[in-house]
Amino acid sequence: MIRDKGVTGPKGFTAAGVAAGIKPTGAPDLALVVNTGPLDSAAGVFTTNKVKAAPVLWSQQVIKERRLAAVVLNSGGANACTGPEGFQDTHATAEKVAEVLGRGAIEVAVCSTGLIGERLPMDAIRSGVDSAAKALDDTVEAGFNAATAVLTTDSRAKQSWEAHADGWSVGGFVKGAGMLAPNMATMLSVITTDAVVDGPALDAALRSATGRTFDRLDVDGGTSTNDTVLVLASGASGVTPTAEDFTALLTAVAGDLVKQLQGDAEGVTKEVSIVVRGAATEAEAVLVGRTVAEDNLVKTALYGSDPNWGRIAMALGRADAVIDQDKLGITINRAVLFSNGARAEDRSAADLSGREIEIVIDLNVGDGTATILTTDLSHEYVEENSAYSS
Amino acid sequence: MIRDKGVTGPKGFTAAGVAAGIKPTGAPDLALVVNTGPLDSAAGVFTTNKVKAAPVLWSQQVIKERRLAAVVLNSGGANACTGPEGFQDTHATAEKVAEVLGRGAIEVAVCSTGLIGERLPMDAIRSGVDSAAKALDDTVEAGFNAATAVLTTDSRAKQSWEAHADGWSVGGFVKGAGMLAPNMATMLSVITTDAVVDGPALDAALRSATGRTFDRLDVDGGTSTNDTVLVLASGASGVTPTAEDFTALLTAVAGDLVKQLQGDAEGVTKEVSIVVRGAATEAEAVLVGRTVAEDNLVKTALYGSDPNWGRIAMALGRADAVIDQDKLGITINRAVLFSNGARAEDRSAADLSGREIEIVIDLNVGDGTATILTTDLSHEYVEENSAYSS
Repeated sequence: MIRDKGVTGPKGFTAAGVAAGIKPTGAPDLALVVNTGPLDSAAGVFTTNKVKAAPVLWSQQVIKERRLAAVVLNSGGANACTGPEGFQDTHATAEKVAEVLGRGAIEVAVCSTGLIGERLPMDAIRSGVDSAAKALDDTVEAGFNAATAVLTTDSRAKQSWEAHADGWSVGGFVKGAGMLAPNMATMLSVITTDAVVDGPALDAALRSATGRTFDRLDVDGGTSTNDTVLVLASGASGVTPTAEDFTALLTAVAGDLVKQLQGDAEGVTKEVSIVVRGAATEAEAVLVGRTVAEDNLVKTALYGSDPNWGRIAMALGRADAVIDQDKLGITINRAVLFSNGARAEDRSAADLSGREIEIVIDLNVGDGTATILTTDLSHEYVEENSAYSS
Repeated sequence: MIRDKGVTGPKGFTAAGVAAGIKPTGAPDLALVVNTGPLDSAAGVFTTNKVKAAPVLWSQQVIKERRLAAVVLNSGGANACTGPEGFQDTHATAEKVAEVLGRGAIEVAVCSTGLIGERLPMDAIRSGVDSAAKALDDTVEAGFNAATAVLTTDSRAKQSWEAHADGWSVGGFVKGAGMLAPNMATMLSVITTDAVVDGPALDAALRSATGRTFDRLDVDGGTSTNDTVLVLASGASGVTPTAEDFTALLTAVAGDLVKQLQGDAEGVTKEVSIVVRGAATEAEAVLVGRTVAEDNLVKTALYGSDPNWGRIAMALGRADAVIDQDKLGITINRAVLFSNGARAEDRSAADLSGREIEIVIDLNVGDGTATILTTDLSHEYVEENSAYSS
C-alpha cells in the first residue's frame, strides 16, 4: 500500500482542498473530488444512525442513480439536526458545485463533518467552491490537499493507493476516528478507481469491502449522524477487472485506510486487534468482537497494560451469541491465559507494554471467525472529549 | 427510607460480617444472613451474562425450591471462570453453612465478589463461616456488619429499610457500582421482609421491582458474571400484605439501594437521570435511555459539564427503536435545547455545574416512558479501572 497517494492516484480524477473560511481557525475546510471520466459510476454506504445529517439524506438520494460527477466535502460543521433549512443548505451546495462544473446537482454528493446543530456559513461555502474549482488538479498534491481539508480532530491526512498489475488502481482518503463516533462525530471516506466498473458492480464491491473493513473498526461504539463512504469509477484505464479482483483491491485499500483510522483514533495509546475464532457464525464472531471492543472495563485494563482476561470473559458473555464457558479460550499477545474454561498460563506471561495488542478469543462452538480493531480507553480520550465542545 | 437499617430491620432475621482472611488486607470479607422464620420463602434474580460464576450456577439451582434458610456472601474473590473445582468450592461453602445451622445445603444460597479466575481460600471460608455463625445477631449493628463485609471498591456500606403502616417491613443491603460491571465485577444485594409472602408471590414481586430499579441503572453497560439479588421472607410480622402493597414497598427499598449504587459508582462526578418520554413502548424507552447512558461521548461531555445535545441526538439515533428526528426534543436541566427537530434555547441556558443532571428526551412517537440512571465518564473512572488489576 502506498500512503502518499490518494484519490488522484487513479487516472480520471481531479481534486482540490482549500480554506473557505468555515473554520474560525482559517485551516483548510473544503474539498472537491471530480470524476473526469469517461465513466461516472458511483456507489455509497451511509450511517445506520436514525438521526441523519442533511448531507447524508441528500447523498443517499443522489447515489440511487449510481452516477456521480463530483463529491464536495466540508469540515467545520456537520449540518446535522439543522432541520429543513439545513437540507436547503446541502442542496444549495450541490447546486453551486454543479454550476461551476457544468453538470447537474443530482450528480453531486455532499459530505459534512463538525459540530452537530449549527447551520453552515453558506457564503463561505459558495466562495470556497469557486476557489476549489479553480484549484482542481490531477496531481498527488491536489489529492493530498483534499484529504487535508476534511480533517477535524485528526492529527494527519490518511490516504492509501494501490495499483493492479493489469494497469488499473484504487486510491482514497479517510477522516475520522472510526465508523464510530470520533470527537467531531464523523467518518468520511472517498475512494476512486480508474477501472471500468458499472454502478451495480461498484455497489456490490463496496458493500463487500466495507463489511470487512470499515464495519470492523469499533473505537467507542458510536455511529455518527454523518458517516459516509463513497466510491467513484472513471474507467480511464480502459481495463475491466473481474469482480473478484476489483473487490479484493478495493478491500485492501479500505483496510489500509481503516488501519490508519485506528492508529489516529482519539486518545489511542494501544492498537488492539480482537480475533474471534470458533463462533457459531461469522456474524456472531463480529458480535462477540464488538461487545469486547466496546467494554470500558476491558478498554481501561488495556490502557493500564493489564492482561485482564477475566474482564474479557465477562464482556464476551454479554454478547447475543452461542457461548459455552467450559469451551472458552483467551490468548493475549500469544500467551494462553484461559483454555477450555480453565486458567492456563499466569497473566504475567502476557507482555502488553507495546502499542500493538492482539487478543484471540476461541469460542470453540463453530467455524465463524472475524477480527475487530479497537483502541484502549485512556485519560487522553476523556480529556479530548470532555474539555472541548465538539 | 431509613439508611441505617438493613437486613435485620425486618423481624425474623439474624446477620453477621467477619474478617475471614480471604482479603489479604484483613478487612471484613464474609457475611451471613439467616432467616429464623417462621416462613422461609425466597426468590432471586441473577446475571444474564452467559459466563456465570460458580455461586450463581449454585444459587440458581437452590432458588428453584423458593425456600432459603440462609445466604452466605464473600468478597475477596468472585469464584468465576474457575471450572468444576470452583463449583465444588461453592458447594462446600453451602455444606459448611448448612452444617453450622443444622439445615440442608440446598437451603443455602452463595454469593461471591472479587477478582475473576482465582480459586477461593477454602480454609479461610470454613473458619469464617464458624466465626460468622457465632456472631449472628438480630441487631442493627449485625446487619451493618454483613453489609460491610461484602464491599470491594465501594466507598461505604449501602442499606435501606422501610416499614409499612400495617406492621411489616422490607430492608436490605447492596454492594457494587451497578447491575453493571463495577471494578470488582459484581453487584450483590440481599433484601429481607417479615411480611407473610409465599415463594411464587415473592418471585413475582422481585421481578417487578428489579425491572424498574436494578435493571434501570446503567453505569458502563457491563453485566457481571456474579450479579445477584435475593429476597427472603420470614413471615415474623404475621401480616399478609396485598401483592400490590408488597411490590410497592419492595420496589421503593430496591430503588433506594440503586440510588446509592449510582452515587457510589466508580469515578462518578455526575449523577445523571435520563428520562425518555413519548417512546413507542416502555421497552423502547428503556432501550433509548440505555443507549444514551452507555455512550462514551455523551458521558465525557457530561464530565466536562458540557450540555452537548448533539451527542445525545447522535447516541439515541443508534437505538433499535422508533425515532423521528423531526419530532425529537432534548431538555437538559430544564433548558429546552432541541425541540421538534430544531434548535431551541442556546446551550448556555443549561447549567451543568452541579452533581445532579437530568436529561429529558422527548421522542413524541407514543406513550412509552422510562428513567435510566447513569454516571459520567471521568478521569477517576479511567484511573480506578486501569491502575489496578481487578
